[in-house]
Amino acid sequence: MGKAHIGVIGLAVMGRNLVLNLNDHGAPVAVYNRTWERTREFLAGEAAGRDIRGCPTLAELVAALRQPRVVLLMVKAGSGVDAVIDQLLPLLASGDVIIDGGNSHYRDSARRQAHLQATGLRFIGLGVSGGEEGARHGPSLMPGGDPEAWPLVRGLLQPIAAQVEGQPCCQWVGEGGAGHYVKMVHNGIEYGDMQLIAEAYDLLGQGLGLDAGQLAATFAGWNQGVLASYLIEITAAILAVRDADGTPRVERIRDSAGQKGTGQWTAVDALELGVPLTLIGEAVNARYLSAHKGERERAAAVFPALDIEGAATVLSATHQGNPSIQDVHDALYAAKLVSYAQGFMLLRAASQRFGWNLAYGDIALLWRGGCIIRSRFLGDIKRAFDRDPDLENLLLDDFFAAAIRQAQPGWRRAITLGIQRGIPLPAFSAALAFFDGYRRACLPANLLQAQRDYFGAHTYGRLDAPAGQRFHTDWTGDRRERTVDE
Amino acid sequence: MGKAHIGVIGLAVMGRNLVLNLNDHGAPVAVYNRTWERTREFLAGEAAGRDIRGCPTLAELVAALRQPRVVLLMVKAGSGVDAVIDQLLPLLASGDVIIDGGNSHYRDSARRQAHLQATGLRFIGLGVSGGEEGARHGPSLMPGGDPEAWPLVRGLLQPIAAQVEGQPCCQWVGEGGAGHYVKMVHNGIEYGDMQLIAEAYDLLGQGLGLDAGQLAATFAGWNQGVLASYLIEITAAILAVRDADGTPRVERIRDSAGQKGTGQWTAVDALELGVPLTLIGEAVNARYLSAHKGERERAAAVFPALDIEGAATVLSATHQGNPSIQDVHDALYAAKLVSYAQGFMLLRAASQRFGWNLAYGDIALLWRGGCIIRSRFLGDIKRAFDRDPDLENLLLDDFFAAAIRQAQPGWRRAITLGIQRGIPLPAFSAALAFFDGYRRACLPANLLQAQRDYFGAHTYGRLDAPAGQRFHTDWTGDRRERTVDE
Repeated sequence: MGKAHIGVIGLAVMGRNLVLNLNDHGAPVAVYNRTWERTREFLAGEAAGRDIRGCPTLAELVAALRQPRVVLLMVKAGSGVDAVIDQLLPLLASGDVIIDGGNSHYRDSARRQAHLQATGLRFIGLGVSGGEEGARHGPSLMPGGDPEAWPLVRGLLQPIAAQVEGQPCCQWVGEGGAGHYVKMVHNGIEYGDMQLIAEAYDLLGQGLGLDAGQLAATFAGWNQGVLASYLIEITAAILAVRDADGTPRVERIRDSAGQKGTGQWTAVDALELGVPLTLIGEAVNARYLSAHKGERERAAAVFPALDIEGAATVLSATHQGNPSIQDVHDALYAAKLVSYAQGFMLLRAASQRFGWNLAYGDIALLWRGGCIIRSRFLGDIKRAFDRDPDLENLLLDDFFAAAIRQAQPGWRRAITLGIQRGIPLPAFSAALAFFDGYRRACLPANLLQAQRDYFGAHTYGRLDAPAGQRFHTDWTGDRRERTVDE
Repeated sequence: MGKAHIGVIGLAVMGRNLVLNLNDHGAPVAVYNRTWERTREFLAGEAAGRDIRGCPTLAELVAALRQPRVVLLMVKAGSGVDAVIDQLLPLLASGDVIIDGGNSHYRDSARRQAHLQATGLRFIGLGVSGGEEGARHGPSLMPGGDPEAWPLVRGLLQPIAAQVEGQPCCQWVGEGGAGHYVKMVHNGIEYGDMQLIAEAYDLLGQGLGLDAGQLAATFAGWNQGVLASYLIEITAAILAVRDADGTPRVERIRDSAGQKGTGQWTAVDALELGVPLTLIGEAVNARYLSAHKGERERAAAVFPALDIEGAATVLSATHQGNPSIQDVHDALYAAKLVSYAQGFMLLRAASQRFGWNLAYGDIALLWRGGCIIRSRFLGDIKRAFDRDPDLENLLLDDFFAAAIRQAQPGWRRAITLGIQRGIPLPAFSAALAFFDGYRRACLPANLLQAQRDYFGAHTYGRLDAPAGQRFHTDWTGDRRERTVDE
């Protein structure tokens, strides 16, 4: 029996499924878990009859590996990762590779790569998406870190990833924390996609009066078109499930959304990089608001739907053409486009900040299969970056510009319906406000600048002067304007 | 000549004006600046003939002070503050007070208080708002830190603060970084207020066709009513200023808004505390978007206003009652109310997280005068917390609930107009989406929870089961639901 090709540390469900997936593709695997009991159960169960070797100690795991050794950590993100790395350090040799496949923050991955590089070890921060099913049968894998490690692990990772049109959803992303960064943005986009679907569901149900059967059929139909995606598919499936008494199960599910923090990371990072990632921000905030269940119930009593009727009457349904299911579809599509445009704006800003030279089309390809946001749409994004690798913004691509132009009237009608009926559409609305701001050569920020100059002498530029030249007005005195040397 | 009552370090304009203000109120002041030249100029200029003593070294500054000594730092926030503190440490004695009046992050202030407390010194992080004018004639002061320091400096600080109805806009806020935290939230709210005014300005101009004279008159009129505030007042003044050729100067000002980061701090902190601070988040993002001037100009060519006409026609102006100036007023008022409600949600969350026991009514009082967001409105907020110090949310106060009910129809009409005309209203829209979510006992987050359970087995609660009980459905198998032990 030869040496194992890879060692996996941590046999929770994600770790176990990656081990089985690696072994399916021909790799003998050595495994270690902090408690031997779990290793024993795994060897006697799913791993029985396979070339998967249990190791009771890290030293035995390392001894079981061919050189250069490749060790994949599937342990809980945080200090536990550093603790395992510290234990591995004296056991490994220069040139060996440590992969962290957990949900680590990209800053930790950047720090770990730098730290290990100094010891001669090679580190990869590996974003893994697709949940348990993906890990078992083909996840989306986003590797980043030490570029010298990539040729050593490529042959292990690409075969186990999801394959779309013959290409693996696993490509080198970039140095430092780039892999976990792209995974983080994936998760942020996932938050956005889910919130958009929730708003469409609400608008179709509360706004247009569709029942559960019609809702399920509507999403199933959308899954045949431009919105075709895993999340739309499972939404249709969820809406079709009923309790024993015939009530759609989803209507019984408590409306307080949980989260594990990666959406928040994305929103915070965008704020720190100065990128207007408004839709994902609203999606994160919608989950926060949903958690205030008791307070919302009290507020519902203070502001009953009746109050809204007054507004609805004033705005009444005199539109030429009533809002339709297609309008909601178009709103979802257009808002999704804005969300991805913002997400790629964030990737661009991060790539510049961290010197990653990200390949945007490749990233779209990584997400096209295996992960939660997989969709037909990501193929369209890949093609947009194929047409123009330097594309400034997805919204400026001919295909997407035409798509959003076409979706625009329905998008506006759908939001107007929400406003009339008092249906909250934070993500639909944020997307439209962004789009209408984005396509404005002149925004009212001129007034902001005047205010800032008024109360804080912050100075301003003029449209009819060279960029960079600064002016100040004596607003409270003679109202004269003078140029300012900075 | 007796000892000075306070020493001020840093003679930039804020420092100089606070020195003069302190001296106006009877305090002999010792001053120090890193470069003597600036001290000399100050003494020969504005400080001439006053009991203000220049000190060429920190040792001489400290020697000039009565005990326990009080030293106010007015230096640039960041490592410079730590550097000056390090230089002061060997010169000061146990019981002396260091006040940092710069724009420091609250985490730094909390760290400095803990650090200095260990040395026997007493630290205050002092939020100062009101700009140069405020510093000179009455700022809003937000002191927090070591509570034992407060009695020692209260008599110095309260007299120099703005006074409203006989009360100083300077009250003890809380321990650690509480003072700078409240200042940070003030600045976030300022970002929100400014963005709301910018959107109203845009909607009145681009949506309703008001010219500059009408705009100035409208804001001047609003300044007589519930919106009466410093920012509305200066907006009216700004809109009345014209260039030599008669063009309103504001129309010539470049629409790329700058910022100094405190709005971003507020938005990031809210995300980290799990508070849906959506309006301020949109205000920060609107500034980010405004900075993409060149890209917006290119996008304007791809999406000309003509494209919007199609949508506008579809939605056409068949409303009973056309949108009016009063609708824009009501939108601004309602959205402002939501913004402050969110801001106080953040203060509440921070108070709980950091154990500050913040007095919300006192904070409204601090902001009622002296600072950029000063307004009649803050008096209403003070009264709401006077009526019920444990008020769960400003929106649930009888006065404000009635106000928002009344403003609601106009608010909805105003946003609808923006949607029809393609006028970006990110803050107006975010506020309405929040309000409509807040007053919903049931949000569509039930679908999110079903999705999370589908792809990640995250489990969910049921509306008809005790809170805390968790369920999981085998969505892809027999669709049975089972309870989960956690």
